[in-house]
Amino acid sequence: MSFATLRTADGTRAARLDADRYVLLDAVDVGDLLRRGVSQVSETGETVPRAEADLVSVITAPRKVFCVGLNYVSHLREVNADQPLPTYPTLFAKFADTLTGPFDDIAIPAPELSDTIDWEAELVVVVGRPLYRADEATALEAIGGYTIANDISMRQWQLRSSEWLQGKAWDATTPLGPVLALPEEVDHARGLTITCTVNGEEKQRGNTSDLLFGPAKVLSYISTFTHLEPGDIVLTGTTGGVGFVSGNRTLLQPGDVVTVAIEGIGELRNRIVAEG
Amino acid sequence: MSFATLRTADGTRAARLDADRYVLLDAVDVGDLLRRGVSQVSETGETVPRAEADLVSVITAPRKVFCVGLNYVSHLREVNADQPLPTYPTLFAKFADTLTGPFDDIAIPAPELSDTIDWEAELVVVVGRPLYRADEATALEAIGGYTIANDISMRQWQLRSSEWLQGKAWDATTPLGPVLALPEEVDHARGLTITCTVNGEEKQRGNTSDLLFGPAKVLSYISTFTHLEPGDIVLTGTTGGVGFVSGNRTLLQPGDVVTVAIEGIGELRNRIVAEG
Repeated sequence: MSFATLRTADGTRAARLDADRYVLLDAVDVGDLLRRGVSQVSETGETVPRAEADLVSVITAPRKVFCVGLNYVSHLREVNADQPLPTYPTLFAKFADTLTGPFDDIAIPAPELSDTIDWEAELVVVVGRPLYRADEATALEAIGGYTIANDISMRQWQLRSSEWLQGKAWDATTPLGPVLALPEEVDHARGLTITCTVNGEEKQRGNTSDLLFGPAKVLSYISTFTHLEPGDIVLTGTTGGVGFVSGNRTLLQPGDVVTVAIEGIGELRNRIVAEG
Repeated sequence: MSFATLRTADGTRAARLDADRYVLLDAVDVGDLLRRGVSQVSETGETVPRAEADLVSVITAPRKVFCVGLNYVSHLREVNADQPLPTYPTLFAKFADTLTGPFDDIAIPAPELSDTIDWEAELVVVVGRPLYRADEATALEAIGGYTIANDISMRQWQLRSSEWLQGKAWDATTPLGPVLALPEEVDHARGLTITCTVNGEEKQRGNTSDLLFGPAKVLSYISTFTHLEPGDIVLTGTTGGVGFVSGNRTLLQPGDVVTVAIEGIGELRNRIVAEG
């Protein structure tokens, strides 16, 4: 079973995917659905054909957006070849405003502001129940589901200081979706192939089994210092093949179409456009 | 003129300080007051004696909390003595949950979780009007006021990776307040003495004139990549004299009282307690 958030004439709406139709639910987004409990939310009686659905960020307003850096061995090797594997996760934040829809155009800054715009295919874990000081087993039980992000990064800004936030938090640059897949649908996202392509050319290919700090471990770790609530999300890091360190010296330009796919969840597909 | 946010029997309330009394306003906090416009919000008719006011974080739920690192020359010299001064601000985030009241106890983790708990006296700039792609002059005009934070830091966690977030975002560890001072009351916080004491012993003494990136410059810079809204806040960085790099090897312990003061704004005073 999977859920999405749709734009409708009455604002956004959570919906359950039922074969080729979305069944609209009485919740404003999938975050609202998780906070109230999937079984507590009724259907509105309306449906939208899948092909006509206008999807927004699957969680529109998470209270907290965490990101894990350097979490696949393949990515660690390409950026820090000589370093030992890290003992602790590397964590940074984004804002709700950073998110955008799974098929929305992504407007990138003019070259005079930033001209190295990079892709990062990521598995996202969505919190389903409140968590604080939770062990890994408890964290695993509290996972609401899994989705996908493309952690589009303005590398010049990211590398201006030790702290990456300023390259990672440009408004409406991180597509999230297309759906929330429930944990049991994807076996807690174990062993899933994750890819990124640009204009049909594959740039990244990895597998979630290579995550150094897996979803439950990361949630447990974060819950040591802060309360996690339903609808909070954690982008778990990207696999090898990002543009700025690999042979892929051609980074994203207006007109490019970038696709991120995870087996069993779906795909994001976004056109890069110049800021208007 | 200055404003605070009080706990009342009916939840939190913004209030205007009028000599020795707080005049309650029809807004839930100072963020709400700024969003609606100070002149648009009426008084409730109730007042609370200043001495009896129970103050909470002056902005209770900012949408965005930015922090600037390494922004006083004195602090840069103590942590990076041999480096040239930075060309760009170093930015990281906190969450609304990280904030706490100006006189609230601060519960620190047990030593087995983290045992180097440090102080950081900081001037905070509060956004008063929406800002996006703003130049410095526009940003200056959009400042809603100034307040104070103590960016209490769990140094062991901060230094576990390149990204400091995990040492900076422990729930209810960053006191914010006591009041919002309007820009004209403090001449845009130019040339103000800022201090931190622990149990009456001075640990930090600096002046806001030594900020490398001042309030308007920082807001302008951030507004390049994200929309800032009324009630959003930026902690502008700390001055020299933090515990972990200076001679002050004794860091915060349960029972300590830590005070951060800025001339013309007021002071934070928090007792450190062990987690219950």
